[in-house]
Amino acid sequence: MAFTHRAHMTQRLAIGIDLGGTHCRAGAVDAEGAIVAQRLCEVGRNRSVDAIVQLVVSLVDELQAELATGDRRPATAVGIGVPGIVEWSEGLVHKAPHFPEWDRVPLAALLRDRLGVPVAIDNDANVVALGELWQGAARELTHCCVLTFGTGIGGALVIDRQVFRGDAGFAGEVGHFTIQFDGPPCACGSAGCWELYASATGMRQLIASSNDPAKAAFLQLFDGNLDRVQPAQILALARDGNIFASTLWKKFGAYCGAGIASLVNITGLHHVVIGGGLSGAWEYFIGETERAIARRTYRATADRIRLHRATLGQSAGIIGAARLMRCLSA
Amino acid sequence: MAFTHRAHMTQRLAIGIDLGGTHCRAGAVDAEGAIVAQRLCEVGRNRSVDAIVQLVVSLVDELQAELATGDRRPATAVGIGVPGIVEWSEGLVHKAPHFPEWDRVPLAALLRDRLGVPVAIDNDANVVALGELWQGAARELTHCCVLTFGTGIGGALVIDRQVFRGDAGFAGEVGHFTIQFDGPPCACGSAGCWELYASATGMRQLIASSNDPAKAAFLQLFDGNLDRVQPAQILALARDGNIFASTLWKKFGAYCGAGIASLVNITGLHHVVIGGGLSGAWEYFIGETERAIARRTYRATADRIRLHRATLGQSAGIIGAARLMRCLSA
Repeated sequence: MAFTHRAHMTQRLAIGIDLGGTHCRAGAVDAEGAIVAQRLCEVGRNRSVDAIVQLVVSLVDELQAELATGDRRPATAVGIGVPGIVEWSEGLVHKAPHFPEWDRVPLAALLRDRLGVPVAIDNDANVVALGELWQGAARELTHCCVLTFGTGIGGALVIDRQVFRGDAGFAGEVGHFTIQFDGPPCACGSAGCWELYASATGMRQLIASSNDPAKAAFLQLFDGNLDRVQPAQILALARDGNIFASTLWKKFGAYCGAGIASLVNITGLHHVVIGGGLSGAWEYFIGETERAIARRTYRATADRIRLHRATLGQSAGIIGAARLMRCLSA
Repeated sequence: MAFTHRAHMTQRLAIGIDLGGTHCRAGAVDAEGAIVAQRLCEVGRNRSVDAIVQLVVSLVDELQAELATGDRRPATAVGIGVPGIVEWSEGLVHKAPHFPEWDRVPLAALLRDRLGVPVAIDNDANVVALGELWQGAARELTHCCVLTFGTGIGGALVIDRQVFRGDAGFAGEVGHFTIQFDGPPCACGSAGCWELYASATGMRQLIASSNDPAKAAFLQLFDGNLDRVQPAQILALARDGNIFASTLWKKFGAYCGAGIASLVNITGLHHVVIGGGLSGAWEYFIGETERAIARRTYRATADRIRLHRATLGQSAGIIGAARLMRCLSA
């Protein structure tokens, strides 16, 4: 027992932070990828750079205090996943839709100054991919594409077990490939982006444009307010046998599959890891996804595609962000 | 002069073959990437495996005879670019739309048996990329995407100066990503594929669906026969000031740009090399292509994208196919 205690004390820890549009999750992660302490807090209305830096600093301080209480050494590095366009090598956030004021924010440097430890930042989807590669569904995959379906779509390309970043670190902006040339405008400035269809936003859009007679009864369950419809509730209704809800998941599955087929045709990556909140409805959409992929790829390709369900859930961001510093052993 | 002659005699040559749907080009290529002898022949109606193998064998025999006459050593390897789904590592052609009877044809082995030299095969677009990397527009690029716009769209992803092949060699089937989810069926089995829009086929489709009053006068130039409209003629008309023809190129440019923006968003590759027959109309479409890219990518991405016009023209396939064997020096 004394020996275990000593191992505790000497093991190197990193803090991983998953900064989202509504919540921020933080955890201290050990060299085996286990979360030994964690915190969750809401992201408030003040989304200025200062406010978010302060939020992160508080979470790190709380975690370090908890580690000290548990007789552990303090974490020696911090990694953060940010939902936006991140220039990884420079530690720069170019643009982050949830933080509209941000413009070329040197987030890594700002946090390094406040925290006094090395800080690395990356796009949130890349961080999820690092987590799934290290401890999750991609542990044994050499190449793969990691996708997260939530409010929007996140994506990362993994080649030879490394996240491929392209020329400037922006690879994997898969949510914004054009899947409907004459489709509606997207907040990104483009139109007909994949994430307007295969996402929570897309599911609400599918309801809005539906002329199924069952739509009225479905919407009544939400007091007629489309904005209140969340994927978790559509899933609960589908489980209860609501046909309109099941049909929505099938439509989501078809868009999901058309996009995955496109990604596979372009990248030649045959293993696709699917995570994010919407992946919880797996059995309600995956059949349509597979059918769409079979239709939209050559048979030689379709036969090789393997869809993997992400296994780390909401911990993926914390574990992957901690992994970012590469200060922990593999 | 005697020295030069001797250098001729000892230089190692490879034969590169660019097998297309209508023509087959073959050339003997030296270690510096220069074509020292070449042949062009039509691909006849008989498109059986035997007929094509015989065609290639004849072209190689003719080239070897010409090399012998010129006191050169015979070529020691043959590389071939094939328009279709090619499993490079196995030398296997899975499917080739121009050769409908073909099904998992071990083309490399069949030719090796007949020719008695090492034979490598690859997808035609990959071969063009190898040519442009070695001797053309991609000579100084580390990563890039190489696209050919012709009857359809060919594509290759180049990462660290290597053609990235994905898990089974099928990466870069860019013509078949879905750009219009509810679009018309494609010969590949999918629907709304990019190559139904940004290609020679797509341009004819644009004419067919146009309700511009100038369409009738335009079609009269082709005896009212849409099938007779070729990109080269649309280009000649645009040069002559025909507004309908110029508008067609602008529409092509917009589809071209929407697709390139999608590829860049997904892959993060910022350098795009554009070749193929339609690239001859560069100045008539590239403005619209750039506008579409600016609209459909984030500014941080758009600012970094560079479009390069391919420089090898119809020689790219021969030079790249010869390069395939890696038996020539860089």
